[in-house]
Amino acid sequence: MSNNRLVTPRKLSGFMELSPDKQVVFDDMIDKIKKVFKQNCFMPIDTPVLELSEILLAKSGGSIDKEVYYFKKGDTDICMRYDLTVPLARYVAMNSENLIFPFKRYQIGKVYRGERAQKGRFREFYQCDADIIGNETLPIPADAECINLIDKTFKELGIAHITHISNRNVLFGLCEALSYREKTTDILVILDKINKIGRDNAKDELLKLGVKEKDAATLIDITLKSGDFDKILSEVDSLTDNECFQKGISELKELSSLIKVMNIGNCVLDLGIIRGQNYYTGTVFEAVVPEHPEFGTVCGGGRYDNLAGYFTEKKLPGVGMSIGLTRLFDLLDNNDMLPKHPLSSTELAIIPLGDTLNKCFELCAFFKEAGIRCEVNYSERSFKAKLKEANKKEIPFILIVGEDEVAKAQFNLKNMTTGEQFTLSKEECLKKINATR
Amino acid sequence: MSNNRLVTPRKLSGFMELSPDKQVVFDDMIDKIKKVFKQNCFMPIDTPVLELSEILLAKSGGSIDKEVYYFKKGDTDICMRYDLTVPLARYVAMNSENLIFPFKRYQIGKVYRGERAQKGRFREFYQCDADIIGNETLPIPADAECINLIDKTFKELGIAHITHISNRNVLFGLCEALSYREKTTDILVILDKINKIGRDNAKDELLKLGVKEKDAATLIDITLKSGDFDKILSEVDSLTDNECFQKGISELKELSSLIKVMNIGNCVLDLGIIRGQNYYTGTVFEAVVPEHPEFGTVCGGGRYDNLAGYFTEKKLPGVGMSIGLTRLFDLLDNNDMLPKHPLSSTELAIIPLGDTLNKCFELCAFFKEAGIRCEVNYSERSFKAKLKEANKKEIPFILIVGEDEVAKAQFNLKNMTTGEQFTLSKEECLKKINATR
Repeated sequence: MSNNRLVTPRKLSGFMELSPDKQVVFDDMIDKIKKVFKQNCFMPIDTPVLELSEILLAKSGGSIDKEVYYFKKGDTDICMRYDLTVPLARYVAMNSENLIFPFKRYQIGKVYRGERAQKGRFREFYQCDADIIGNETLPIPADAECINLIDKTFKELGIAHITHISNRNVLFGLCEALSYREKTTDILVILDKINKIGRDNAKDELLKLGVKEKDAATLIDITLKSGDFDKILSEVDSLTDNECFQKGISELKELSSLIKVMNIGNCVLDLGIIRGQNYYTGTVFEAVVPEHPEFGTVCGGGRYDNLAGYFTEKKLPGVGMSIGLTRLFDLLDNNDMLPKHPLSSTELAIIPLGDTLNKCFELCAFFKEAGIRCEVNYSERSFKAKLKEANKKEIPFILIVGEDEVAKAQFNLKNMTTGEQFTLSKEECLKKINATR
Repeated sequence: MSNNRLVTPRKLSGFMELSPDKQVVFDDMIDKIKKVFKQNCFMPIDTPVLELSEILLAKSGGSIDKEVYYFKKGDTDICMRYDLTVPLARYVAMNSENLIFPFKRYQIGKVYRGERAQKGRFREFYQCDADIIGNETLPIPADAECINLIDKTFKELGIAHITHISNRNVLFGLCEALSYREKTTDILVILDKINKIGRDNAKDELLKLGVKEKDAATLIDITLKSGDFDKILSEVDSLTDNECFQKGISELKELSSLIKVMNIGNCVLDLGIIRGQNYYTGTVFEAVVPEHPEFGTVCGGGRYDNLAGYFTEKKLPGVGMSIGLTRLFDLLDNNDMLPKHPLSSTELAIIPLGDTLNKCFELCAFFKEAGIRCEVNYSERSFKAKLKEANKKEIPFILIVGEDEVAKAQFNLKNMTTGEQFTLSKEECLKKINATR
């Protein structure tokens, strides 16, 4: 093929693609997350990446967000999923007769958002979601189970985290009690960015909105409360007898007691947790990595009144948590917080010397049968080059098989970590290798 | 929300979506395949689902196959991948400086083909691919490694299989030797369908093409040869001294000897294996399930001279195997060949009786800590309904926790399989459950 017909190999920008050694680490993280999800009795589903546009756009009444990848195939309007929640809603609405509620499901898969490419933002990324869906009702223990999942997942991943927890009814109720009911959304938008813009700017914005100075102080004070559940709840619980406010307080008290009995660690009450979307209707939570506040929220979630209101008359309340794994992996990678994996997973490389290739494959089958990740270096490179290659791949053991060794059934095993060399039968080699695993 | 705003929940046709209990079985199959791929020293990669159109369509010179999902996002022409091989070619061409050759990679992921929906055909399906890519050269042991992977994978899956193996150079060379070089493609198309149309029709078609009667018989005879390597190779190896033919025979002889020393089972030589695509240039193989010939090919692959000729001047020969897992799963499911999994994975359900919910969660944390998949049934249904639910979910153990039991720290454990009941401390319960695992 002549040079001028070559297409330059490149991938789309904003799409993560890892080297094999890093992919092993990424896959290990997925395995750990799955293990915790399963251990906590969540069941898997795997919905398609493509959905009918009318499904994914039901919320927006059919109007297409700039971020969404959509296209026509024949006469069919198709969208790529931008989260795993709308597909879950569609799934539960379609299959509600066959599911047992509360339905605990997890899904780990890629989602697509065609946003402006920038560092740390991905157009294709893995979401790891776990949700509990009730039929008509769903008690607060479900919220505690999701928060428990966060704690156990990050422990399994070896990432020190804190989960900040609130209940949106607290601020909803307080706004109502202070007679700003119709301004609730605007007030929450301001309070949500208090950590970014600071207390004084937040106050100015609230005043501009028509909130009285005294009320602004009350709203800001409560938003900044963060720490021990019992202490804070006793400080604020008599602030107003507004029904919605008291509902929030009472749900938080129940949650606090469950967090203790369920042995959930690394939780604080943080009444400043709002989570932008209108979506959430009760408990909300966000996990952060205290040593790296710049990571922002590494896992978020909360309670919603009705999962599938666009698809069914059934009332399906739910609570869920979601980890954006691609972004988290990228942050960990950039901060040298990932375990290192060698360029290969091979534990034993067999290197032929002379005319011993068949014997090498025989030995390789023996070691693989015994569970050792073993391969023969059958390339046409020199013996020296093969040794160098084993070193570069950080293969812990090599077995050198020359014609003499075959004749004596005694082989040359080298521990590449310690530099030790042994002359051993294949069974003794196996013992030696297994002893270091 | 009023009824008339509801969107009917439905999914795109041709997209597999499983119930959670079947999804567990599907995921187990993926885990088994991954285990074998890893065990054989293959490393994972995970390329994006979306690629630039110029990459995926490089082969066809930019023309878009009807099957391919493509769209424009802004100014960018995008395609969804229709296999994992072109993305691998792009990946290896982009990263060849950092990879160690032979590069053994596996990738398990969804691919997309918008073909006409029909039973057993999917528009989104999982491919499980393993390939070995060489730099400039790649010896025949790589082909044996791929065939070994097929054997070990199907063994791990518990599916009785036979891998049929040939080498395209045999028929290429024979066509050339019989002076039909320019008709090779047409001849191979006819020979490829001999099992469908029968010997006589194949002969008629060959004659129509201008093949002499005697040559047609020779071509059909060799195509129908299937069985023991040594026997068949000794029957055909002196048929012609055509260079290409002899290359095929000699590669098959080397492969045959490797199959023995590498302890690869369930292989036959089958000179009728052609594998439609022009893509393959040497060894070709197809696995079938002898008890279900109607499944057709459940795994296929072969040797190709140059993986990434569209993207790089580097010569990258390779050999690979691919399982279309979604189709295979569907076939196994339709033939009741899948293991059954209960509606949940829960091993122990704790059912509160009276005001014991907190104690139940405490116990649940204890059992989960010990590795038991345990959950509290905290729904607002009746005790009787909860027992029924545990039965329906086939949960093997239930623990009934009433106020008396809490006072005595002795709990009511029921083995749902045997019907036995015990009154035990939590530690004794744990022992009892572990004894049945």
